[in-house]
Amino acid sequence: MPHQDLRQSERFLTQYTPPKIDGDFTGKHIISVEQFGRRDLQILFDATISIRKRLTQHDRGLLHLTAGRLMATLFYEASTRTDLSFQAAMRHLGGEVVAASNGVQFSSIYKGENLADTVRAVGCYADVIVLRHPDVGSSYEAAYYLDLLRSQVSRQPVVISGGDGVGEHPTQALLDIFTIFDFKHQIDGLNITLVGDLKHGRTVHSLAKLIARYEAQDTTVNFVAPDALQMPRSVIEFLRQKNIAVRETDDLQDVLGETDVIYWTRVQEERFEDPAEYDAIKDRFIMTPPVLAHARPDAILMHPLPRKNEMGTPADHDELDADPRAVYFRQMENGMFVRMALLAKVLGGLWV
Amino acid sequence: MPHQDLRQSERFLTQYTPPKIDGDFTGKHIISVEQFGRRDLQILFDATISIRKRLTQHDRGLLHLTAGRLMATLFYEASTRTDLSFQAAMRHLGGEVVAASNGVQFSSIYKGENLADTVRAVGCYADVIVLRHPDVGSSYEAAYYLDLLRSQVSRQPVVISGGDGVGEHPTQALLDIFTIFDFKHQIDGLNITLVGDLKHGRTVHSLAKLIARYEAQDTTVNFVAPDALQMPRSVIEFLRQKNIAVRETDDLQDVLGETDVIYWTRVQEERFEDPAEYDAIKDRFIMTPPVLAHARPDAILMHPLPRKNEMGTPADHDELDADPRAVYFRQMENGMFVRMALLAKVLGGLWV
Amino acid sequence: MPHQDLRQSERFLTQYTPPKIDGDFTGKHIISVEQFGRRDLQILFDATISIRKRLTQHDRGLLHLTAGRLMATLFYEASTRTDLSFQAAMRHLGGEVVAASNGVQFSSIYKGENLADTVRAVGCYADVIVLRHPDVGSSYEAAYYLDLLRSQVSRQPVVISGGDGVGEHPTQALLDIFTIFDFKHQIDGLNITLVGDLKHGRTVHSLAKLIARYEAQDTTVNFVAPDALQMPRSVIEFLRQKNIAVRETDDLQDVLGETDVIYWTRVQEERFEDPAEYDAIKDRFIMTPPVLAHARPDAILMHPLPRKNEMGTPADHDELDADPRAVYFRQMENGMFVRMALLAKVLGGLWV
Repeated sequence: MPHQDLRQSERFLTQYTPPKIDGDFTGKHIISVEQFGRRDLQILFDATISIRKRLTQHDRGLLHLTAGRLMATLFYEASTRTDLSFQAAMRHLGGEVVAASNGVQFSSIYKGENLADTVRAVGCYADVIVLRHPDVGSSYEAAYYLDLLRSQVSRQPVVISGGDGVGEHPTQALLDIFTIFDFKHQIDGLNITLVGDLKHGRTVHSLAKLIARYEAQDTTVNFVAPDALQMPRSVIEFLRQKNIAVRETDDLQDVLGETDVIYWTRVQEERFEDPAEYDAIKDRFIMTPPVLAHARPDAILMHPLPRKNEMGTPADHDELDADPRAVYFRQMENGMFVRMALLAKVLGGLWV
Repeated sequence: MPHQDLRQSERFLTQYTPPKIDGDFTGKHIISVEQFGRRDLQILFDATISIRKRLTQHDRGLLHLTAGRLMATLFYEASTRTDLSFQAAMRHLGGEVVAASNGVQFSSIYKGENLADTVRAVGCYADVIVLRHPDVGSSYEAAYYLDLLRSQVSRQPVVISGGDGVGEHPTQALLDIFTIFDFKHQIDGLNITLVGDLKHGRTVHSLAKLIARYEAQDTTVNFVAPDALQMPRSVIEFLRQKNIAVRETDDLQDVLGETDVIYWTRVQEERFEDPAEYDAIKDRFIMTPPVLAHARPDAILMHPLPRKNEMGTPADHDELDADPRAVYFRQMENGMFVRMALLAKVLGGLWV
Repeated sequence: MPHQDLRQSERFLTQYTPPKIDGDFTGKHIISVEQFGRRDLQILFDATISIRKRLTQHDRGLLHLTAGRLMATLFYEASTRTDLSFQAAMRHLGGEVVAASNGVQFSSIYKGENLADTVRAVGCYADVIVLRHPDVGSSYEAAYYLDLLRSQVSRQPVVISGGDGVGEHPTQALLDIFTIFDFKHQIDGLNITLVGDLKHGRTVHSLAKLIARYEAQDTTVNFVAPDALQMPRSVIEFLRQKNIAVRETDDLQDVLGETDVIYWTRVQEERFEDPAEYDAIKDRFIMTPPVLAHARPDAILMHPLPRKNEMGTPADHDELDADPRAVYFRQMENGMFVRMALLAKVLGGLWV
């Protein structure tokens, strides 16, 4: 009877309520988009823009923002770009990084230690733990036990989720909504189209929820997916509660002409029981240069990356990449800037 | 005929004598508790307390203590917490870290390079190498070859053992004895109880030897273990030579009422040939809240972590963790402070 | 049909021409020895000597040379010493390092992302990417796509090859030729002997080409190899074009007495179809103390390391290591100094 069974991470989704940001990030765990409101997002956008500007100007003052503070990346599954992005963010703020990305694959699993103990062990050394774990609720469990640890040790460690199984990946959602703001200078008044497997996509769920939490005014969100893979009802209802207009379709052409922001994701063949069903719809879910040709000249094309054949062939990739509307590498770069702002806010609080 | 066979690490236990500290840590390899005497331990305790205080006060001066110096972690087997603890320690002193924790799993083994060459290769870049290796004597072998290298290259690299198979793990023993000092303000005059598999436990051997090397006055050490797993005679004799009182028993209740320090470790079922034998004794070797209830109100409960069912169920863990006598997370945190003191002493020497 | 097939790295050997250094390293990818001329090598030698001197004197000014700049190591196959050497080099210059050495083993391969996208993702965070990849041409492909990325993001990332399958490993060649210069104070007028499997050895090809690119005057290069494993014609012709004298033999004794520099590499049994053929020649390709006894007193013995039985038994290793003519650990140490010079030049440009 392994311990892990008795203390399943998922229980902590109900047992632990992540703290609302409410204008103050200091010392707070970042594990869910539910923690953010419009004002919090606006604070984060402003801090991100300020930090990007300072980094571009080689402002050495940035290196004091988390100096003497230590981040540990604790990755139970590999995610090169999330890991690198957080590490680079912390380094650019003058902070230190230790990576357990490797060891946890062996030692903790081998020795059978549970997450609660491993997280507290790391919390004895680090000011912030970036946790990537395949189990839903794992970051909630980490937050719960770090709160217990705080009374015992000299530092007050926080956890930032780097992805929680099929659950949440809050910093991905934050960089996505920031990228919209970055190119469009607002979230209000936009026509935003999310495309792909909207049923299973963690990324699109979180982005949609954040648009709702921002309480965007006069904004329409289009969900373009095969019928069997549409956005869950709960998300759609949450958007409508917040007065966001929602449109569902399985045909991009219905909405492409009005769209300001195209957020593209993959539809995986494995999701269909009948291959014929996949074959019938797949062409509508591949972004290629001829498809992009029908988009507005000021639209932006986003993608969480990595991409495969949902953007066609490598030759298609090359042609799309050269289109100024393709902003997914800027989006990726923004990921580091958003994480810098978040780390500085969570660890420091007062400076920006 | 692999090379490794011809140059077995264990030979170096007799071939190489680690230098005594004798009040001066500078430039010395740290591979055995045999290097330490009472004065050396007292110096280390004082340095650790000083460093912890400075770190807690965010004293930026700490960041100069190993600035410009480079530590490499060379882990032939994963040990997340030892690796992270050393990395965090070096970073908090302003030093740099490169980690070969990953690569050695592949490259050196694949290419069949022996330890003597790998250690010297790393010694060409690093001022201090933290070596974790499954073979007994490996850190002695590393020390031997680094001494040869010193005449050839511009730096004078030292090795610190991060665990030597079933042999030694000196920094674990140092953090353990420091934690006793930290809570009890002395090693003299205490009643210290080590519990579990005392025959095979590297940790308890080293801790017992260090108590002897400290030459603690008026101190009693109780060894609580199943008969078949008692502390080796050689260790017991060493303690008695140093005038430490020793008591052996297989029942914690014999000594719990007088105990100041309880050091708990696991008894593994696999150590018993006959499962019935294990079943007969196992309940006496599980620490649970009802057991701790019989301990003195000012006792401390230590554990090297990770723990499994030797502390009962996860619910037991939670209840024990909430008891102020449970200090194993503080003990873990002390690991980083002790390693900071050690690194600063070995690399710098003069400062504290 | 995996994407990787459609965009084979090798195509980029013809599609992309690496920039010549021509006296200015700033912002240039370092992927081939073809980029270097005599003047460039001399600049690099001078910078390396200057940096080594400053490091030995603990000149803290070094820590400003790449401060605020970020290096990512992206290793698709493990190479502990190359990885550590680059990391140590960047750290000693005050720069920051993030290592994806671990993650790429899992995430990118698992998710099937191609090199072009992974390199650009990392290029969104890092100023310099050290790429190790099993495919010939991979660093050319990386350079090609990073050039495309430069128009989109705020930084101007460069790639430095850390080894390209059986193709090139330019920094190994640079540290090799520097080590010759370091001990002999010139490349001109020397008698240099390369020994081993010269047909397949990436290292010896690159070193021979660099000697040619240096346009060494009055220099002889001896190639000592079994007939079936001699240096490719193209390399020999390139040397002769540059007026380097070339001698081919399968017997070291033909040239040892005149040799200033012995560069030793391994002949692998697996290269011979008939084991008898290997047995017939193998003794002539094992460096032992009796062989070295016939070398000139001022000769130097180099080796790229790691070594196995091409230097005899471990006892032979120990005896060779104690010979002052054995400089392979100095050569390894020089690897870090050369990489420091290269990083400082590529990232900074103006300072030395």
